[in-house]
Parts: sequence; structure tokens; C-alpha cells
Amino acid sequence: MKLGSRRVYSGRIITVDIDEVRFPDGSVGELEMVRHPGASAVVPFVSDASSDDPQILLIKQYRHAANDFIYEIPAGKLDGGEDPKVCAERELREETGCTAERIEHLYTFYTTPGFTDERIHAFMATGLKHGESAREHDEFMSLETVTLSHALELIQRGELKDAKSALAILFVAGFRLGK
Amino acid sequence: MKLGSRRVYSGRIITVDIDEVRFPDGSVGELEMVRHPGASAVVPFVSDASSDDPQILLIKQYRHAANDFIYEIPAGKLDGGEDPKVCAERELREETGCTAERIEHLYTFYTTPGFTDERIHAFMATGLKHGESAREHDEFMSLETVTLSHALELIQRGELKDAKSALAILFVAGFRLGK
Repeated sequence: MKLGSRRVYSGRIITVDIDEVRFPDGSVGELEMVRHPGASAVVPFVSDASSDDPQILLIKQYRHAANDFIYEIPAGKLDGGEDPKVCAERELREETGCTAERIEHLYTFYTTPGFTDERIHAFMATGLKHGESAREHDEFMSLETVTLSHALELIQRGELKDAKSALAILFVAGFRLGK
Repeated sequence: MKLGSRRVYSGRIITVDIDEVRFPDGSVGELEMVRHPGASAVVPFVSDASSDDPQILLIKQYRHAANDFIYEIPAGKLDGGEDPKVCAERELREETGCTAERIEHLYTFYTTPGFTDERIHAFMATGLKHGESAREHDEFMSLETVTLSHALELIQRGELKDAKSALAILFVAGFRLGK
């Protein structure tokens, strides 16, 4: 239970608080906590998700944290209390230029609860349509269409290194599509 | 590419830097980056991993970020450049009281690369032996032995909410054990 909090950093996306916390045994201590508004992520199916080996869209984007281009699924933070499903639709449109007939919730998880309250809401998108503003690529980001089996291979080989993306893909493959 | 950096917060586990970054198109901007030493996590098999539905150990621990007790696998941060496998062995021993005959690397991933450089190295541990110091539970943490199929159900139902744990369990179930 939080007894108090002092803000030690307030930034563009995150803030850092030192929380005074009462632990389950009644003791009191301080914990540093990176506060994040939360985010949505979406596995976009460009072919019938129920087919043998459906195709999905991956983004390859430059991430300073990795000092490299890494594979991810479309994702982004919730804007000011935004509904996670609306956020997933918006990020899908902004990052791929696509709209979806259906966006279904898969799974919501804490990214790394040892030091941040960030939760990511993972969705799957089906019935994709390219809009006029389809963003094919720029200097930071390119789109790749891959089969689900290839995406799973990228995870198995450790080449798809982003946790939210790997988790959402494994979740949909195992629990929705039975692959 | 990092051009410069200024530290805005230096804490117990994390530090926060504002990095000046040259992006792939040559433009320059600032990014906030939570620096973390990295961590290891381990899926501990308490019965033969090759059996039909092997048993694993889960930890249920209080996390202030979730304001609740949540399911996780044993994990913890790398101590001063520690080898990830050594860290996995140490955290397994400290959190469960067990040693393992074999610790095998599964997968290394970025937890949430939009704002932190934290990477987690996931392992599986087999041939577990209880040590004398076996920690059964305390006020913050309890151990539960569950079947792998039950752990997968907890993920599917959204009750196991920790990304590293869900990802490591899905990875080992799908790619090592073919379940």
C-alpha cells in the first residue's frame, strides 16, 4: 500500500517517483517506481487468421535502447486515459496505414513490474484494409509481411527480441489459433 | 547513435538519462532512457521436463507496481556484470532454495525498449534439488508447484500477468517441449 510519494523526475513519457510503501508484513520501505501511462500493441493479420499459416505485419524500427533496428508489432502509449482498444486501432493506422474490421483483446500484462507500473494491452486485428495514408516505410521504420510460422521462427532463434511482440504472437498462435 | 547524455536521476536499481541521439536519417533529438543492469529469469522444472505434463515452480509475490500479489518465475537483476547464467542459478537458489543439475538458456529479450535498455535472459532449470535453506514462503512471497498446462491456463486467462514469466513459459512450452 502506498503511504506517500515524491517525484524525482518528470519527463516526456515517464515520471519517476520514490514511493513510501507499507509491505504485507507491516514494514515500511521506499521503492523507486517508473510511472508510465500504459500502452496497446496489436498483431495485425493481413490474411485470414484461420488459414493454415496466416500472414502478419511486423515493423522493423530503430530503437535507441537496442542501438539497432528491431522487429516489433505496432504499438504505442495510451494518450491521456485513452481506451486501450481505441489506442490499438490508432497505432495500427498510424504505423501501418491499415484499418481493421475486428480488433480483439488477447492479454494484458505488466512489462517489468520490478520497477514500472507499465501495462500493455495486446490485441489481434483481422480484416485489414490499406488506407490512403499507408505508410510503407521511412528512415526509422519499415513494414514486413511475414507468415506466422516465420514470426515464430524469429522468436525461437532470438531474432525477434521485443517482449511485448513475442508475447502477443506466442499468445495468439497458441491460444487463439492453436498453433 | 548516442552523441551525448546527461543523468537526471540516479537510484538504487535504475538511472535515468536524457540521451542526445543521432537517428538513422541524420536528424538529432533527445530521448529519455531508463538504464537497468539487466536480469535473469528461470523456469524451474520440479519433475522430468520431457514428461507429459511436467511440474514447474511459480512464485506469488507482492509487487507494489501491481498493488497485488502476482505470479512470476524466479528472477532478479544481474549483480555488477554478473554472468546471466550465474545470476539465474543464484536467483533460483535465493527465491526457491533449490539448485539445478542443468540450467539452459532459452531466450533474451528487451522488456520494453521504448524507454529502457533492460534485457532479460530467460533460462530453464532441470534436475532440481531442495537445499537446506529451502525458502517455502514469507510475507512477500510464496511458492506454488503447478503443472505446465495449469501455468499455460493462467496465462490464457490473463491471471499470470508478468511478461517475462509468461514469455519464458510460452517459449519453453512451444519451442523446447513442443506443447
